Amino acid sequence: MVSGVEESLTALLQQLRGTGFTDLGFARVDTDREARQGAPEAIMAEGKTPEEIEAIARVLLDEGAGSVLVTRADADARAALRRAAPEAEEHERARLAWVARSVPESRGLVTIVSGGTGDGPVVHEARVRAQLLGTEVVVHEDAGVAGLHRLAPAVEDLRRADCVIVVAGWDAALASVVGGLVAAPVIGVPASTGYGAAFGGVSALLSMLTSCAAGVAVVNIDDGFGAGTIAARIARAAAS
Amino acid sequence: MVSGVEESLTALLQQLRGTGFTDLGFARVDTDREARQGAPEAIMAEGKTPEEIEAIARVLLDEGAGSVLVTRADADARAALRRAAPEAEEHERARLAWVARSVPESRGLVTIVSGGTGDGPVVHEARVRAQLLGTEVVVHEDAGVAGLHRLAPAVEDLRRADCVIVVAGWDAALASVVGGLVAAPVIGVPASTGYGAAFGGVSALLSMLTSCAAGVAVVNIDDGFGAGTIAARIARAAAS
Amino acid sequence: MVSGVEESLTALLQQLRGTGFTDLGFARVDTDREARQGAPEAIMAEGKTPEEIEAIARVLLDEGAGSVLVTRADADARAALRRAAPEAEEHERARLAWVARSVPESRGLVTIVSGGTGDGPVVHEARVRAQLLGTEVVVHEDAGVAGLHRLAPAVEDLRRADCVIVVAGWDAALASVVGGLVAAPVIGVPASTGYGAAFGGVSALLSMLTSCAAGVAVVNIDDGFGAGTIAARIARAAAS
Amino acid sequence: MVSGVEESLTALLQQLRGTGFTDLGFARVDTDREARQGAPEAIMAEGKTPEEIEAIARVLLDEGAGSVLVTRADADARAALRRAAPEAEEHERARLAWVARSVPESRGLVTIVSGGTGDGPVVHEARVRAQLLGTEVVVHEDAGVAGLHRLAPAVEDLRRADCVIVVAGWDAALASVVGGLVAAPVIGVPASTGYGAAFGGVSALLSMLTSCAAGVAVVNIDDGFGAGTIAARIARAAAS
Amino acid sequence: MVSGVEESLTALLQQLRGTGFTDLGFARVDTDREARQGAPEAIMAEGKTPEEIEAIARVLLDEGAGSVLVTRADADARAALRRAAPEAEEHERARLAWVARSVPESRGLVTIVSGGTGDGPVVHEARVRAQLLGTEVVVHEDAGVAGLHRLAPAVEDLRRADCVIVVAGWDAALASVVGGLVAAPVIGVPASTGYGAAFGGVSALLSMLTSCAAGVAVVNIDDGFGAGTIAARIARAAAS
Amino acid sequence: MVSGVEESLTALLQQLRGTGFTDLGFARVDTDREARQGAPEAIMAEGKTPEEIEAIARVLLDEGAGSVLVTRADADARAALRRAAPEAEEHERARLAWVARSVPESRGLVTIVSGGTGDGPVVHEARVRAQLLGTEVVVHEDAGVAGLHRLAPAVEDLRRADCVIVVAGWDAALASVVGGLVAAPVIGVPASTGYGAAFGGVSALLSMLTSCAAGVAVVNIDDGFGAGTIAARIARAAAS
Amino acid sequence: MVSGVEESLTALLQQLRGTGFTDLGFARVDTDREARQGAPEAIMAEGKTPEEIEAIARVLLDEGAGSVLVTRADADARAALRRAAPEAEEHERARLAWVARSVPESRGLVTIVSGGTGDGPVVHEARVRAQLLGTEVVVHEDAGVAGLHRLAPAVEDLRRADCVIVVAGWDAALASVVGGLVAAPVIGVPASTGYGAAFGGVSALLSMLTSCAAGVAVVNIDDGFGAGTIAARIARAAAS
Amino acid sequence: MVSGVEESLTALLQQLRGTGFTDLGFARVDTDREARQGAPEAIMAEGKTPEEIEAIARVLLDEGAGSVLVTRADADARAALRRAAPEAEEHERARLAWVARSVPESRGLVTIVSGGTGDGPVVHEARVRAQLLGTEVVVHEDAGVAGLHRLAPAVEDLRRADCVIVVAGWDAALASVVGGLVAAPVIGVPASTGYGAAFGGVSALLSMLTSCAAGVAVVNIDDGFGAGTIAARIARAAAS
Repeated sequence: MVSGVEESLTALLQQLRGTGFTDLGFARVDTDREARQGAPEAIMAEGKTPEEIEAIARVLLDEGAGSVLVTRADADARAALRRAAPEAEEHERARLAWVARSVPESRGLVTIVSGGTGDGPVVHEARVRAQLLGTEVVVHEDAGVAGLHRLAPAVEDLRRADCVIVVAGWDAALASVVGGLVAAPVIGVPASTGYGAAFGGVSALLSMLTSCAAGVAVVNIDDGFGAGTIAARIARAAAS
Repeated sequence: MVSGVEESLTALLQQLRGTGFTDLGFARVDTDREARQGAPEAIMAEGKTPEEIEAIARVLLDEGAGSVLVTRADADARAALRRAAPEAEEHERARLAWVARSVPESRGLVTIVSGGTGDGPVVHEARVRAQLLGTEVVVHEDAGVAGLHRLAPAVEDLRRADCVIVVAGWDAALASVVGGLVAAPVIGVPASTGYGAAFGGVSALLSMLTSCAAGVAVVNIDDGFGAGTIAARIARAAAS
Repeated sequence: MVSGVEESLTALLQQLRGTGFTDLGFARVDTDREARQGAPEAIMAEGKTPEEIEAIARVLLDEGAGSVLVTRADADARAALRRAAPEAEEHERARLAWVARSVPESRGLVTIVSGGTGDGPVVHEARVRAQLLGTEVVVHEDAGVAGLHRLAPAVEDLRRADCVIVVAGWDAALASVVGGLVAAPVIGVPASTGYGAAFGGVSALLSMLTSCAAGVAVVNIDDGFGAGTIAARIARAAAS
Repeated sequence: MVSGVEESLTALLQQLRGTGFTDLGFARVDTDREARQGAPEAIMAEGKTPEEIEAIARVLLDEGAGSVLVTRADADARAALRRAAPEAEEHERARLAWVARSVPESRGLVTIVSGGTGDGPVVHEARVRAQLLGTEVVVHEDAGVAGLHRLAPAVEDLRRADCVIVVAGWDAALASVVGGLVAAPVIGVPASTGYGAAFGGVSALLSMLTSCAAGVAVVNIDDGFGAGTIAARIARAAAS
Repeated sequence: MVSGVEESLTALLQQLRGTGFTDLGFARVDTDREARQGAPEAIMAEGKTPEEIEAIARVLLDEGAGSVLVTRADADARAALRRAAPEAEEHERARLAWVARSVPESRGLVTIVSGGTGDGPVVHEARVRAQLLGTEVVVHEDAGVAGLHRLAPAVEDLRRADCVIVVAGWDAALASVVGGLVAAPVIGVPASTGYGAAFGGVSALLSMLTSCAAGVAVVNIDDGFGAGTIAARIARAAAS
Repeated sequence: MVSGVEESLTALLQQLRGTGFTDLGFARVDTDREARQGAPEAIMAEGKTPEEIEAIARVLLDEGAGSVLVTRADADARAALRRAAPEAEEHERARLAWVARSVPESRGLVTIVSGGTGDGPVVHEARVRAQLLGTEVVVHEDAGVAGLHRLAPAVEDLRRADCVIVVAGWDAALASVVGGLVAAPVIGVPASTGYGAAFGGVSALLSMLTSCAAGVAVVNIDDGFGAGTIAARIARAAAS
Repeated sequence: MVSGVEESLTALLQQLRGTGFTDLGFARVDTDREARQGAPEAIMAEGKTPEEIEAIARVLLDEGAGSVLVTRADADARAALRRAAPEAEEHERARLAWVARSVPESRGLVTIVSGGTGDGPVVHEARVRAQLLGTEVVVHEDAGVAGLHRLAPAVEDLRRADCVIVVAGWDAALASVVGGLVAAPVIGVPASTGYGAAFGGVSALLSMLTSCAAGVAVVNIDDGFGAGTIAARIARAAAS
Repeated sequence: MVSGVEESLTALLQQLRGTGFTDLGFARVDTDREARQGAPEAIMAEGKTPEEIEAIARVLLDEGAGSVLVTRADADARAALRRAAPEAEEHERARLAWVARSVPESRGLVTIVSGGTGDGPVVHEARVRAQLLGTEVVVHEDAGVAGLHRLAPAVEDLRRADCVIVVAGWDAALASVVGGLVAAPVIGVPASTGYGAAFGGVSALLSMLTSCAAGVAVVNIDDGFGAGTIAARIARAAAS
């Protein structure tokens, strides 16, 4: 018996050989992603040497990426991006470095609220990512439910948002409270803030997954990058 | 010292007394939710008696809900809805009963793909919820990555969707494959299908949360209802 | 070397032989507990035969217990108490049976709020226990944060309570919201309501333990009995 | 920017539309798998109705599958296969039903050893699967290390095997002992036998994964099917 | 349909804008909490820079906080408080710094017992917090049940306490023993002392949650702060 | 290179072929165990058919086992033993059946204490096993630490024991209290009694493993059989 | 009602005030333990300052302890003991320091076998503890089951032992193999050696708890101290 | 009764005394393993001192090992091997050092694909191990499914492989995609790359264990060594 699927796949794969990525040996940089999905590949610095980061960044920029974002980047990793693109900006506490060459025209609004001061790095990772994808972002930090009145200044921005991001550690009760107030989609980011039974974000993760407010979806613990990506997609589509 | 926040809250709460819900003693039915968030409160049957379900459904219908959906409903629970609304429909395998009195005009497209036949109940819970909120839904079942060619017929519907829902148990690899192909937001629903190390959906949940494809957000295990809710919001906003 | 501690303990234990309990072979009924701690021993029915339950109840009543409470009691277990005390009352859904012979004069107020209808059994276990210990109890069910306005009718009773009990499953966000509003001690009871990542009450438990509102302490999952016990102690002391 | 990858994929997928599987609505039966991977798709009965099982089996047989195996099959599921293929055989305790129409000529030897009598169902699932793929199988049950001498009769068959399968629950120490004796690849199947800290096979799973004997790889808990599949592949290749 | 709840909430929130907190951008300091709940907001140092800590402390003091407590504070964090309030005191091992400007007149007695020497930091966090809230505190350290006679000197203070705090790591058996002796409410603080299966306090946490002595409620692992807060509330109310 | 170890092992194993066990196909009954380890093989009924149990029992009796014990045995399993040995005794609640043909002369004393009435089945499994191995056993049930005085009648038997077994569920605090009182070795058996955070015996297991009293070792959850085995060995050796 | 138990306990506790321990404020040193249980209190260094360690050691020595053992002791902690007792010995890799002033005459034999070289620190903690309690100890390291012949030189010492200790990380299969060979009680110590799914000793712990060889009891992960304590008790009693 | 098994075992073990290993006190080096199993013992550096590593390496080389591999080796550990064998090679990032004296003639092909750049260390551990056992190895890194086209260049090498190794962290979806394409056995290595819910490789481990593609078996997290061992065995047998 001959597998027809195998024949077709083989034909395709031969045709694709070398298409849409650059092979650096230690990495196959997906230079097609921005065209395919509207968002360029980003570089997670952890587990990569500065030299590898610099090389990947150069490939992305040479292939015309609109922007390059390096996440979870210590000082060495951020310097690596600056070698590839001297105009690169950075946010030390959020461990970010990025360069924006041709960001899409801004469309849609993402409102980010966080539970506490310690959630700052995740908030700003989400913010920068969403901005680089072409969205307006408003941020309200430290609005946790232990003092509900601190959420008051955020309400107008929550109401007019095309997508809301809630960043919260500990019990992440903020996700349910916000989820019960707004009609826009809510993306929850469990943060690893908290000690003891917070278990590095597990408590917040479970809390958000079981939120009694429908309309909340969740990304990985501390994954500001992922939240910024999906929120920007939602907001840009809603505003077009 | 006098707490100004307390005074304001107290004033508000006195004003709200009895507003926006009907108190049945065992339940406070949120009759304001549809106006506030665009989606009526639903009834999760587990943990409620048929009498309670019937009473809540009657309140919602009397207060003008556009639709009433009962989830996780066994035969008795589904009969309870039919007593409140004889025209109610049901889906036995997905344990659903619902009545649609004034569903919003359909807007936007949600495409649902699932990994295997056993994910059917979750697929249909998501489908009915999204349809009741006023969205078109297309379903492709059993398209798991063990045979990637089975995903082929879904590609066109994935490309034109305003929001994609992926339902998958086991290793839920389908979420990453789909997430790497499309530009629309992807909502993952980990399913409790699978045995052994599938751990009742935990393996699928972790897999989706750590998907290497950005742009994926996740709801609770088997929570077709939650996925349908957020997907409909996203799709309707994108298509307006 | 001779152990002085051992000698003293031995003396004491010899003196205690048979004091303060009745030995039924399969059980040593602590008939001293009410005198020692102000609350009589209760009977958890699970893992005991109806005959054992009846025998323990008879001992407690014969020894002058003010009340006897049987928890987690199916129909057979409840019948067993009625055989020992024909005037016994029961609550089927909360799986309780009890007989009150000389409840202390009521002192203090305990307010119980719950997140959803499904938390009812736990709510009523806490209520009955606190009442039997001599406390006034007010109950507000189904006041979860997905619709904050449903909490409004409870606010006055929360403010005037000597102790508050919050019963909630799923993400248990209600504990933090209530904990941020009141000045009285708050006892959280995580409920096993919810599916998927609710993990039988674990999500609610972690949530309550990491509540961002200080002033919240937590008992075991579904442990209405324990919450009623400590709340009654707090409320009675505060009101004396 | 146009995505070249997307264009190629789209072309392929259009070409594949309907190729290599039969669409039953609730299932897309991978009729190409045997040609592509040498092993036909099997049917896991759990989560499928008898009608669905029968329909899938008919498609596989109509499309010329060499054999059809239904796993985790209760009496109804096994009857469903007999309706599609009256000559079907079955193994009640292992919850299997199968029909063999053109099994490949037998090549290679797989030796299966198990720790205890309770592992029988998993042993036989592995055995039948490997036999249907065209391998000779020898079985030694109840050879656990609490009495090492019970392993003696298996040694000759372990030594001459092209691949060894070890099925064991509890602490699964058998995997390390066997792994330290033989030169052939060892596939471990953690079994869910055991109570308490056996945690439904988790103890055995961790034990096998951390086996101090190199040369052991592990499949899912109770996954005799997966073990039989990979063992047959290994054994047939080694013997060719 | 118009949402009445939404209108009321919007009105309230507009009214609250800027009420009851000071917005520092990275933090919204809840200056209303002391009036609302009788206990001022505290500052958890982890995840905050010294500059942020200093700024928050200044706001609290400027707004008239009776005391400011910084927990989980390393040397830099403690120095930050001293910059804001030179009279600040500190406890190095408990990683605390605090300033007391107008502590309420002391009322009620909290007795703290701990299982071992290593629980000291948690003991003192609870002690200082309760004292700052206006309660007398007595401490008995290293009274674990492996030598029950070491509990003897604490018994009188346990009996006369309005609330008891038990701090214990490892198996936390002390909570049950104390819980079986006293009639006052018992707050358990699981400590992260212990290795191996102590799992950073999880063993102690589960132990306290399942204490066979009714009348015990539990706070987060190592959460001396939370225990001090609720114990002070209980004790002050009981003694008034 | 030739493996000398392999040659020696092969020689041994050939010599052992069929020695010391009887091969029933589904089971290799270790008829040598009593001679080798002083305790005959027992039969865990779960996962075995009544026919298998009967056959194994017959082999053991035919080969001269001093006693045969069937654990975790439902009514059918117990009947199976009676078919093999009509004089068999049984304990329904502990799910035991056994026949004693030549129990060793009793030597040494094992004292068993349990935390609560629900631990009875585990207590009696340990008792019967230890008695069949030739030890005197004294039992004190329901002596949990919530009422320490209930332990008083057990103290004399604890002091004169050669080995102590503590059976306890929930927080298993009894293990530490007893472990701090006696000089004999203590074997802890965590019981699956308890609900919520008792997690089927996990809380008790962790508690016993981290007991602050040295001199305690632990067996599997509910494993009265294992505790009886090792306790009898210890007690008999101590008393010889 | 007056509690008789309370009166008796109060009397005892008053009588015990200050008996049997020395109160250092941060510690209550149990100077009665050696008389009561035959083994002096030891000092776990983690969580204690060198000054505290020195002070506790001085109390124990002043009160006539036969030996003092400091476990989990870094260089500073070991130096602290030397200040209290200049003749103190130490074992750097096992992080031990000890001083032996009057060790009981040696009685009984404990044989320790370990799975690998990395288990050395735990092996030697068990060895020193057992020797200080007055037992002969023989050690066989690196005898894991991946090469069963390496166990051969240990067999004679295993057979003649009064108690066997097995120290093993990874899958700890050695415990079952040894447990199936010997008639003496076996104490398993799961070691934290191993990576990945070894989970810091959890895999070894579960493995030992579910050992298919009866007659094995288990202590905490890495708890050489606990194993040495109970093994010495068993061996000394058996040899007397 | 005399145990025949015991007598035989004792005879064997006496005969084996000192056979097949060299006893260094802290280690019993299995010098027989290469003859017995075709693969020499390797040295895991973690938990061993450089001196121990050097001594073990010298024994292996003196006894004629074809190669010596040191894994998880920091700079000191790698230097230790160079002292024993100056011609030793090393791979810093993969923490490897090795010396190859007589590697078997190469036979069979192992193809390794990895999900991302960060998996490099595990990839190279597997590669070196397989090469030292006498297999050809081809490597394709960073071919994760988020951009499926990056897998295209690997397809030919996947198809012609005798065994495939997939190294992947995060959700490890690559294992299922590859497993669905090839007919050769697939060995999955879950990598500890990833943060948050990746839980140090647990997510990848569960994902691979529940892979919907049959024919995949899994080794421990990050265990390139184990994967290289079994893959080389499979590939060499298939190619002979």
